[in-house]
Amino acid sequence: MSRQHNIYVRNTVLAEAMTIWKKALDECGFYSKSPVENVKVDDSLGRITAHPVFAHRSSPSYNAAAMDGIAVHFSDLSSATEAAPVRLTREQFVPVNTGNAIPEGFNAVVMIEDVHQIDKDTVELHMPATPWQHVRTIGEDLVATELILPEGHRIRPIDQGAMLATGVTEIEVRCPPRAHVIPTGSELIQPDQAPKAGNIIEFNSRILAGYLNEWGCVATRGLPVLDDPKQLRETIKAAARTNDIVILNAGASAGTRDYSARVLAEVGKVIIHGVAIKPGKPVILSMVGDTPVIGLPGYPVSALLTMRLFVRDMIYDFLALPRPEPQIIEAVMSRPLHSAMGVDQFVQITLGKVGETLMATPSGKGAGVVMSLVRGDGLLTIPTGSEGVGAGEKVKIELLRSRNDIDATLVFIGSHDNILDLLANQLHRQRPIVRISSAHVGSMGGLMAIRRGEAHIAGTHLLDEKTGEYNISFIQRFLKDIPLQLINLCYREQGLIVAPGNPENIQSFKDLADKGHIFINRQNGAGTRLLTDKILAEEGIDPADLQGYGHEEYTHMSVAAAVASNSVDAGLGIRAAANALGLDFVPIAEERYDLIIPKTFLEESKVKTVLDLIRTDSTFHETILSLGGYNLRDCGKVLYEQ
Amino acid sequence: MSRQHNIYVRNTVLAEAMTIWKKALDECGFYSKSPVENVKVDDSLGRITAHPVFAHRSSPSYNAAAMDGIAVHFSDLSSATEAAPVRLTREQFVPVNTGNAIPEGFNAVVMIEDVHQIDKDTVELHMPATPWQHVRTIGEDLVATELILPEGHRIRPIDQGAMLATGVTEIEVRCPPRAHVIPTGSELIQPDQAPKAGNIIEFNSRILAGYLNEWGCVATRGLPVLDDPKQLRETIKAAARTNDIVILNAGASAGTRDYSARVLAEVGKVIIHGVAIKPGKPVILSMVGDTPVIGLPGYPVSALLTMRLFVRDMIYDFLALPRPEPQIIEAVMSRPLHSAMGVDQFVQITLGKVGETLMATPSGKGAGVVMSLVRGDGLLTIPTGSEGVGAGEKVKIELLRSRNDIDATLVFIGSHDNILDLLANQLHRQRPIVRISSAHVGSMGGLMAIRRGEAHIAGTHLLDEKTGEYNISFIQRFLKDIPLQLINLCYREQGLIVAPGNPENIQSFKDLADKGHIFINRQNGAGTRLLTDKILAEEGIDPADLQGYGHEEYTHMSVAAAVASNSVDAGLGIRAAANALGLDFVPIAEERYDLIIPKTFLEESKVKTVLDLIRTDSTFHETILSLGGYNLRDCGKVLYEQ
Repeated sequence: MSRQHNIYVRNTVLAEAMTIWKKALDECGFYSKSPVENVKVDDSLGRITAHPVFAHRSSPSYNAAAMDGIAVHFSDLSSATEAAPVRLTREQFVPVNTGNAIPEGFNAVVMIEDVHQIDKDTVELHMPATPWQHVRTIGEDLVATELILPEGHRIRPIDQGAMLATGVTEIEVRCPPRAHVIPTGSELIQPDQAPKAGNIIEFNSRILAGYLNEWGCVATRGLPVLDDPKQLRETIKAAARTNDIVILNAGASAGTRDYSARVLAEVGKVIIHGVAIKPGKPVILSMVGDTPVIGLPGYPVSALLTMRLFVRDMIYDFLALPRPEPQIIEAVMSRPLHSAMGVDQFVQITLGKVGETLMATPSGKGAGVVMSLVRGDGLLTIPTGSEGVGAGEKVKIELLRSRNDIDATLVFIGSHDNILDLLANQLHRQRPIVRISSAHVGSMGGLMAIRRGEAHIAGTHLLDEKTGEYNISFIQRFLKDIPLQLINLCYREQGLIVAPGNPENIQSFKDLADKGHIFINRQNGAGTRLLTDKILAEEGIDPADLQGYGHEEYTHMSVAAAVASNSVDAGLGIRAAANALGLDFVPIAEERYDLIIPKTFLEESKVKTVLDLIRTDSTFHETILSLGGYNLRDCGKVLYEQ
Repeated sequence: MSRQHNIYVRNTVLAEAMTIWKKALDECGFYSKSPVENVKVDDSLGRITAHPVFAHRSSPSYNAAAMDGIAVHFSDLSSATEAAPVRLTREQFVPVNTGNAIPEGFNAVVMIEDVHQIDKDTVELHMPATPWQHVRTIGEDLVATELILPEGHRIRPIDQGAMLATGVTEIEVRCPPRAHVIPTGSELIQPDQAPKAGNIIEFNSRILAGYLNEWGCVATRGLPVLDDPKQLRETIKAAARTNDIVILNAGASAGTRDYSARVLAEVGKVIIHGVAIKPGKPVILSMVGDTPVIGLPGYPVSALLTMRLFVRDMIYDFLALPRPEPQIIEAVMSRPLHSAMGVDQFVQITLGKVGETLMATPSGKGAGVVMSLVRGDGLLTIPTGSEGVGAGEKVKIELLRSRNDIDATLVFIGSHDNILDLLANQLHRQRPIVRISSAHVGSMGGLMAIRRGEAHIAGTHLLDEKTGEYNISFIQRFLKDIPLQLINLCYREQGLIVAPGNPENIQSFKDLADKGHIFINRQNGAGTRLLTDKILAEEGIDPADLQGYGHEEYTHMSVAAAVASNSVDAGLGIRAAANALGLDFVPIAEERYDLIIPKTFLEESKVKTVLDLIRTDSTFHETILSLGGYNLRDCGKVLYEQ
């Protein structure tokens, strides 16, 4: 096989790639290594037994009193009754506490409560005893040589107790696979270094090593390797010699500095390069000597997904443990999702239970978005033969979070406001089980979500140009059949977010159009977009004259970030966003931001907690006001209901 | 409050005790301590955020190429088409790899596949570009100051990645409560010491500390404290000064050497001593200074149960985390269980799914039986107002093991044989997910379990005295309507198990009766008991003349253990049991031991695995034969079906 051939990224179907990979692992003896080591039982928690564990000694190892009282010979009491009690002398009984050995020649215990002490050396008893009553006989718990634990068992604290109780103090356990993660790329810097443009903080190896450990490995991380084939070659060879699994992160695609496939073909054998999955297509599965080396794509979402697909099962198989069964639930897609035929597509999903329906929403766009993993509750697979799923379609989701957590999640969809982060945190603090899942799809998106029964609460600030009133006319038009309350959250200042000190002296949209400054817009359906369009219409500005009008962002903070980085000169947004990033702010309007809550959800405890919070928590109010640009004069007030 | 009063063991109702305890913890400020500490994000895995975590920097922190290709200014390509391509010179484009910064003055990326290289300094493009296409704009993932994690969140690897990606390298996390376990009792020895009669291996503290850690503490263990009030007093005072929770194990009841309550009343305040629960009644809840000190009963089952009832929630509350929700399932009781009114009774349960029914069986008798915890799949609570549950009654069980594990469990009920341990282990080795849950209730118990649909397989060796045939006539009588197969497992030698060297020269039951030796019997319904009674009848021996005839054990190994300890002189059992403990064996009969399997279960994969194993695994056969006293001439053969 030529080197050139190996470097070409193919598009092997996932199921086939898995079969080929399993076969390659089998051939190199990966599954039959089964290393074991000796550990003290005291240090064995969480380890996997390599052999069955049998009791060394019986437990208890002697006949033991099960009660506080006296040890007797049962036959001495055979005639005892209330009417004709029996007296025992000092030779005929021995005081015992629970756990004491029953002395030779005795075979029953009478509880202290039933013993009438006559004098120091005499007791009187009013009942007969049965042989071995209140005695824990030898081996009652386990007899020497009996099985305590089978092999392949993960040791719990109680298992340690059972082993120690029967004299087992050392056992053989299976060794976990040693995994090593090699980050590659000259652009990588450590988290405590300040990034320059083009630098990427090296955090992937932490995520990858974290999950490798969680799945049962002992994972180590190397320092980043520069984009230098020689250094990469040496690092891979060294890692393959001393580990059972090597993970190479990034360098898997076909870019000008992606050396991984070439180097792996030089030092070993590339089994698969390129799998028909999205994300994660350029993954490399290779063998260096007898050690599997997996080249993962660079983006965190792709890297974690491909590691989950190709490496997780390897670990369970290495340890000869049953693979974890995925927990699958059924949910309803909140929006359509396209997928290419011939590709297995994997999508991080946020789940929320609204009424009786579990709604599924993609948790973020793009493989580079770490937050889509942080927010991900589940994983949707769109199989290779499907073109996608439609809105409202039932889908099967693999849960990545517990079902209880998901049921306790309040679903907020609609316009973005910085208060929502504070609300999410405050809510989680007051009632730790409650989380807020919030999707920022603009005010109209929020209304539509309420109409489709996908959200508990929508945030909206839609200005009716004719009446000058907020939200109500839109509700009457789009949500007329739904009983609901419109509750004010805040009034807030909207204005132009500009660079610190406003060096271009931008005062209005007119300035932007006239001076040819670059604007950044919000998406269609956003309340802020409606406000932009209203002002442009009022001021007679043609959107075509506003440079960057077609460049859309989804949140106030994204607009502020674009200004902060000098990519653009100005954008319309709230004062809190400008303040957060230390930017200047030119006020344009005060607007009302309300919450729409269907009446069916008003009595749900998580919704009630939110309302309590915004209505009564003065610390929460102070924190909001400290963000700047907010007025809470109507906060929590019902402004409209139907 | 007098000391005497404190020492008296009361019987407070559980719910009331919990309320009183929570109030006492509240009053001493236990819940409001909320200590926090600074940790590096790299060391924060599994810790709980003490505050919300906000992004320090945007991610990405610069506009980054999302593809390999060239950076362009989109307006340069506005006229590009297939028919009229546009050429760009070296000043108009910059080659970029994925992740590279987009240079100042550029605002879009064209993928390498769409770039036609004309010469070193010229490229040709056939399509227009949209602004910011294939660019990850600043803050696409997160904008500086946005919320990454709320407070009270348990940190996962992906959370570490998200924090590091946005420049957060150190955070404040909640400190787990420091718990200290003090074992008490002069009889305690360490696991590596050889026990003399009356010694108890100190393993409880390992179990208790293990679970305290699992629930979120940092738990330490002390060395055992002798039964000496002065030493106990000093140890408790020292532990209370430096810990948030102190666990005292044993010394909680009212025996002559149980000093705990007295000492606790001296150095602190006893809040509760004695709760109406079984097991665990003598538990002590006390405060030493502001530190809760919990005195647990000595038996492991009681100790763990009371710690679970009174300490687990304390830990979650201390950390302000939601308490774990118990997973409750419904099962059918396989046998009646009595409970006293006025007492909350807790029973360790083994669960098995037989057909569509989940059967619940108590996993062991007695609070001293560690194996009942090892085997326990769930916990049954019989509340204070109930007198117990009947066989066949539906009960709610709190799961202690995953539902998948339980569904994969093969339920074996019936006669005990040492082969079963080997079978359990071999099965688990071949198919790690499959476990055997085996209840040794004798041959007749096995038949009854099959009749009630409670077991997949029953083991039986019932001799029909009239025909001399095994099992078949019993099946025809008790299981006549159930389609089943009777499959041989083995022939095995039964005989008298006697001391090594047979010092009393016991050769028969007649010898036992004549010489007044002490016998140990098996329970009613055991095949071995039937054999005993048949021989006694044949030899004309009156059971009343056989000393110890009324003393019953449930397994061959328990009989052997009684002989090994010199508690008795002989018992009837299989040769393998005698061999296991190095005892002598006087053969009396060869008997047949068969398996009954209802036909409905024959096709279940776990049952098929068992049959495959006994029919084809020669290593397994060799291991059985090495136990001694077995003959496998018909192993796996179907001897009868209906």
